[in-house]
Amino acid sequence: MNSEFGERIKVSIFGQSHSQAIGAVITGLPAGLKLDTDYIDSFMKRRAPGRNIYSTQRKEPDKPSVVSGLAGGYTTGDPLCVVIKNTNTISSDYTGFKDTPRPSHSDYPLFVKTGGYNDIRGGGHSSGRLTAPLCFAGAIALQILKKFGIEVGAHIYSIGGAEDTPFDMTDISPELLAKVKEKDFPTISDDAGKLMRVEIEKARLELDSIGGIIECAAVNLPAGLGSPMFDGVENKIAAAVFGIPAVRGIEFGAGFKASKMRGSEHNDPYFIKDGKIATKTNNHGGAIGGITTGMPLVFRAAIKPTPSISKEQDTVSISEMENKKLAIKGRHDPCIVPRAVPVFEAVTALAILDLMINEYGCRSISDKVRE
Amino acid sequence: MNSEFGERIKVSIFGQSHSQAIGAVITGLPAGLKLDTDYIDSFMKRRAPGRNIYSTQRKEPDKPSVVSGLAGGYTTGDPLCVVIKNTNTISSDYTGFKDTPRPSHSDYPLFVKTGGYNDIRGGGHSSGRLTAPLCFAGAIALQILKKFGIEVGAHIYSIGGAEDTPFDMTDISPELLAKVKEKDFPTISDDAGKLMRVEIEKARLELDSIGGIIECAAVNLPAGLGSPMFDGVENKIAAAVFGIPAVRGIEFGAGFKASKMRGSEHNDPYFIKDGKIATKTNNHGGAIGGITTGMPLVFRAAIKPTPSISKEQDTVSISEMENKKLAIKGRHDPCIVPRAVPVFEAVTALAILDLMINEYGCRSISDKVRE
Amino acid sequence: MNSEFGERIKVSIFGQSHSQAIGAVITGLPAGLKLDTDYIDSFMKRRAPGRNIYSTQRKEPDKPSVVSGLAGGYTTGDPLCVVIKNTNTISSDYTGFKDTPRPSHSDYPLFVKTGGYNDIRGGGHSSGRLTAPLCFAGAIALQILKKFGIEVGAHIYSIGGAEDTPFDMTDISPELLAKVKEKDFPTISDDAGKLMRVEIEKARLELDSIGGIIECAAVNLPAGLGSPMFDGVENKIAAAVFGIPAVRGIEFGAGFKASKMRGSEHNDPYFIKDGKIATKTNNHGGAIGGITTGMPLVFRAAIKPTPSISKEQDTVSISEMENKKLAIKGRHDPCIVPRAVPVFEAVTALAILDLMINEYGCRSISDKVRE
Amino acid sequence: MNSEFGERIKVSIFGQSHSQAIGAVITGLPAGLKLDTDYIDSFMKRRAPGRNIYSTQRKEPDKPSVVSGLAGGYTTGDPLCVVIKNTNTISSDYTGFKDTPRPSHSDYPLFVKTGGYNDIRGGGHSSGRLTAPLCFAGAIALQILKKFGIEVGAHIYSIGGAEDTPFDMTDISPELLAKVKEKDFPTISDDAGKLMRVEIEKARLELDSIGGIIECAAVNLPAGLGSPMFDGVENKIAAAVFGIPAVRGIEFGAGFKASKMRGSEHNDPYFIKDGKIATKTNNHGGAIGGITTGMPLVFRAAIKPTPSISKEQDTVSISEMENKKLAIKGRHDPCIVPRAVPVFEAVTALAILDLMINEYGCRSISDKVRE
Repeated sequence: MNSEFGERIKVSIFGQSHSQAIGAVITGLPAGLKLDTDYIDSFMKRRAPGRNIYSTQRKEPDKPSVVSGLAGGYTTGDPLCVVIKNTNTISSDYTGFKDTPRPSHSDYPLFVKTGGYNDIRGGGHSSGRLTAPLCFAGAIALQILKKFGIEVGAHIYSIGGAEDTPFDMTDISPELLAKVKEKDFPTISDDAGKLMRVEIEKARLELDSIGGIIECAAVNLPAGLGSPMFDGVENKIAAAVFGIPAVRGIEFGAGFKASKMRGSEHNDPYFIKDGKIATKTNNHGGAIGGITTGMPLVFRAAIKPTPSISKEQDTVSISEMENKKLAIKGRHDPCIVPRAVPVFEAVTALAILDLMINEYGCRSISDKVRE
Repeated sequence: MNSEFGERIKVSIFGQSHSQAIGAVITGLPAGLKLDTDYIDSFMKRRAPGRNIYSTQRKEPDKPSVVSGLAGGYTTGDPLCVVIKNTNTISSDYTGFKDTPRPSHSDYPLFVKTGGYNDIRGGGHSSGRLTAPLCFAGAIALQILKKFGIEVGAHIYSIGGAEDTPFDMTDISPELLAKVKEKDFPTISDDAGKLMRVEIEKARLELDSIGGIIECAAVNLPAGLGSPMFDGVENKIAAAVFGIPAVRGIEFGAGFKASKMRGSEHNDPYFIKDGKIATKTNNHGGAIGGITTGMPLVFRAAIKPTPSISKEQDTVSISEMENKKLAIKGRHDPCIVPRAVPVFEAVTALAILDLMINEYGCRSISDKVRE
Repeated sequence: MNSEFGERIKVSIFGQSHSQAIGAVITGLPAGLKLDTDYIDSFMKRRAPGRNIYSTQRKEPDKPSVVSGLAGGYTTGDPLCVVIKNTNTISSDYTGFKDTPRPSHSDYPLFVKTGGYNDIRGGGHSSGRLTAPLCFAGAIALQILKKFGIEVGAHIYSIGGAEDTPFDMTDISPELLAKVKEKDFPTISDDAGKLMRVEIEKARLELDSIGGIIECAAVNLPAGLGSPMFDGVENKIAAAVFGIPAVRGIEFGAGFKASKMRGSEHNDPYFIKDGKIATKTNNHGGAIGGITTGMPLVFRAAIKPTPSISKEQDTVSISEMENKKLAIKGRHDPCIVPRAVPVFEAVTALAILDLMINEYGCRSISDKVRE
Repeated sequence: MNSEFGERIKVSIFGQSHSQAIGAVITGLPAGLKLDTDYIDSFMKRRAPGRNIYSTQRKEPDKPSVVSGLAGGYTTGDPLCVVIKNTNTISSDYTGFKDTPRPSHSDYPLFVKTGGYNDIRGGGHSSGRLTAPLCFAGAIALQILKKFGIEVGAHIYSIGGAEDTPFDMTDISPELLAKVKEKDFPTISDDAGKLMRVEIEKARLELDSIGGIIECAAVNLPAGLGSPMFDGVENKIAAAVFGIPAVRGIEFGAGFKASKMRGSEHNDPYFIKDGKIATKTNNHGGAIGGITTGMPLVFRAAIKPTPSISKEQDTVSISEMENKKLAIKGRHDPCIVPRAVPVFEAVTALAILDLMINEYGCRSISDKVRE
């Protein structure tokens, strides 16, 4: 099992929910970047648990410690390893899940794969907690992309039936992305946000959980990133996004709605806008045939409801091969969507940076970050 | 630009719509497999153009020629290269698209990427025609998977507003998959198929095109294939599926509907069925946290309407930086969904075979194929 | 089994000695390069068989046919597939080698690996013939590197006991490299060349074969290519060079002699030469700790004597598990060293181009090739 | 820059000589292996500095801390991260080397590559210290290979002009390998070892350093590992071995001597030995055409003299572009060959394990380690 993402910039994630620490090794970083630790900290806080009633009550300081790859605060070009200690672990909660696997958790398939040697405590390496080092890596990628004027941002598109105003795909300003990021509950419409919080609270009170959709965008991308077929923008981002636990689907631009459309409706005519080539609908979502067009990259991803719920559920005993009942105690989010927002920004930024390094080379990326 | 898929079994696709030939190099194949050329031929026919009024009138014999990797009809374990000649090419149709790019084709982003050296004739390397060698490779993968009892099959889930009966995700028989494959128009319900054909014909008569959704399944997979995070089943299949031109979205199991569900509704309880561990809803679609559970793998993908339509469209002249009008002549499918069905089976089979080789090793896969 | 080299530019070799054809798919090429087919042809002729008494009498026109990746003579950026037909194949020669494997050929290990399904005719995929498409790919790489002023050249360093004048590692001119390339028998000293030819002829008359050493250099490399540890220049070139059949060792700069030296003798002091930083001995061979210094890259590789000899040899029958005698008929080179010289240039050029693309990006390499 | 080795099992090395810590992330490990920490500790001690007068006086406890990938002492199949703190760092020694680079260190090429942002303290990421986590990973690989009966061992073949008894390539017992490993100074002949120590001591007293050769073997390998061309055993081991700082050359079996031989002399006849197929000379060194034969794998690597010497040396000032003098103080080994011996065993074990997983699959390797 390998938890590595990227080709030019690689992020290799390690750690289990209840191991000594979690972290990442990031290779392929340009040398000479002054790490903006304040930015990284504030970015990681958006994902951190325990901030409000919508999230798990496990409190973790999540203080990243960079053990290599820096000298004097600047990247050296060497592999950067970040370590985040696990401090608040209550492992006894998980006794027994090996034999009576939790529905819709990976307990059972991992049991089969590892012969039962999987670390089930807190979800092990499959825990959402592993997105913390991913956010650390993503924050660095975001900092680098900013040097090129590229901004990545996401908002909660829906929670259950409550929906936010969607992005206007033809016109997404960096300012809008920045504004949404500052919110505790990242929606474009604050009214929609209130309705969503009601949905979450209702689920929590009923010992249940609820899913949602996140919409993510990247603006000011150059045209020409990506390739036809398997090394396209969509392939790369999809492969990254399914690395976020609980994602069940992804769509670009008009997405599944495109399947209901006529060509004359879905096709996205070019026109000259402010002296540049633009398109009228951005139904294509920023990439055609795997290659960026320069229009905003826009995608949405479906997130399933947290599988850990306090209601009693059916399961089996693997050793006895008999049906059983199960009630999950422990701490868990009634809805992970709000905390997942920065994780989407992180993996998207990493995927884009990877494409940028491929296209422009380590040397010119390095030159830029030192400006 | 690299058009390679897979890690243990690799398929490297080459060719442009109007180059001398298209084809693939397939590496990592087990040695000692007797290629079932009849099966491959019949599989490739399902994708071939020119069979009926729903598809492009470009007729190609699409006769694959295996130039390496075989001896006496058996695979040798060496790279297998298949070459398919392009015979029916009318390149003059494409003059002019370089400067006035077709909406929702990759003409413009490829122009930027290659400095205008892209091969625009027939869509070049971005053409749907490149799925022919992919089908060849997929047919071999399907033949190998069959030795393990694994079957992969797909159907047209919808065309525009017309919808087929969906798979019953908890109970998909190899027989159903085989039966649908035999149909000219691969739907589960023949009535639904008729409605879909009406939708396509209407679009065609209006010089337009239409999109749709394909649903694909794989049955009899062992539990334990795939990994958490980035090497999961979903990541791999998504990365493969976005290699099929015109795909705009993918979802597994309950997919985007999961975003509207409560955990108590989406969670998929285990129970003992016929002495084996099964789940009740298969809302998870066959893989949890990146790893197969042994339940049918089920996903759906959205396909956009063919961008080549005969209606006049807006575009620009790149050299003059002015708005222009464009009418596309030439041959094209009013709906590519029917022909795309075997392509989905092909990439899914390749992705699964890759996971199988990873888990069980070249040697044991080889032993099995010689049985 | 996978016969692919490179990361940014990839060459995937296919074919067996007696299959319908051999060839390569080359991905990652910049778009807009006008292929210099005359140069490629002349380069490939240096490797071609049947030119003189020192090489196998199998005559092959070795006419490469580019079936994809070009439009109007320029690279399109798409995968370039080259196919070379096998025309002159006498397969009956090889009957029987499966059960009584030829010493120091890969017959036996391949038999075990493939369960006997390996293609043994002419050495199958392990044949030196597979270096023909490698030379095609290398010639393109050489053409691209020339745009950056980089030249790669090799000479026969020794055949048996006969030795050429070695490169003066601190001062290798592009002119010297060009001059040696023009020779039928590529040595720096023509007298040494004569002695080498005597060695080969003696071996041939005694139904035997003989080995040798090739020395290869690349000049005008920029400093800073490569990385510490596993992605270094030496790792990459060694991994490429061991892809050439019959290579048994490789050494850089002072090489094995460094093991006998003191630090004060081996260390390579910097000094200012013509306003640039240079070193005094180039004992380091152009790369320190995996990274180029800007000095000439110099390495030597040992090539074993051709294993196919007409003298009777001992072997076994695999099926009978008994000792046997074997006499190899057929056509073979008494010494493959002369024909291997361009192959070394080819793989070295590919390795360097890969490092260049990594460092400077596809886009800037593309810009340069269009100048 | 990326310091990752392997495909099926991957080792990603991080850290600089004077960073907070060094370490590795190891992915692809089988689940259910009980880590033998005593074995790992004793293995790592063989490489540790400060043990005697032949090595640097920097003393490091080198206590590896496993922060992930284990549960209850058993591998979980998740990425295993090991962290080794740097405690004894004297960074002031290195001030000034950025502008006046040390001859035959990578100071200068790294300066160019990173724009001067490289971490020069203690050699940064290019330091031999980074082989400590490599040894940790290698010790695990060795533990796994032992389950298959495979043993890897190395000895000092020569130091300067003093030579050890070479391996008898046709007959290397696991017992011999074990016996040499136990020695403080790992030679086969103790007399040769004494002469070598005299060579080292002489170099040290003269403020100089000295190089040497290491010979490494692996026994009880199955036949059939590896592939023709670029994924062969020799390619993989060479790529790994050049990851060890100071390696200047590698040769397999008869190696460079093969270049002086006739085919009749170098060819390695098969014969039946104890009911099994064996070869008479093992001149081929255990692999033919990239694939193991089942005979011992034997290779030798040349190691340059430590570039850090106390004698005054010539160099330049990069900023002033003028010639300068340099005297290196600080702590360094007069000969790194003795401490490098286990590092060769480590990378060889990792390369072989990678080939084994490729051939036999994760699942069967996992089954074996749990026995």
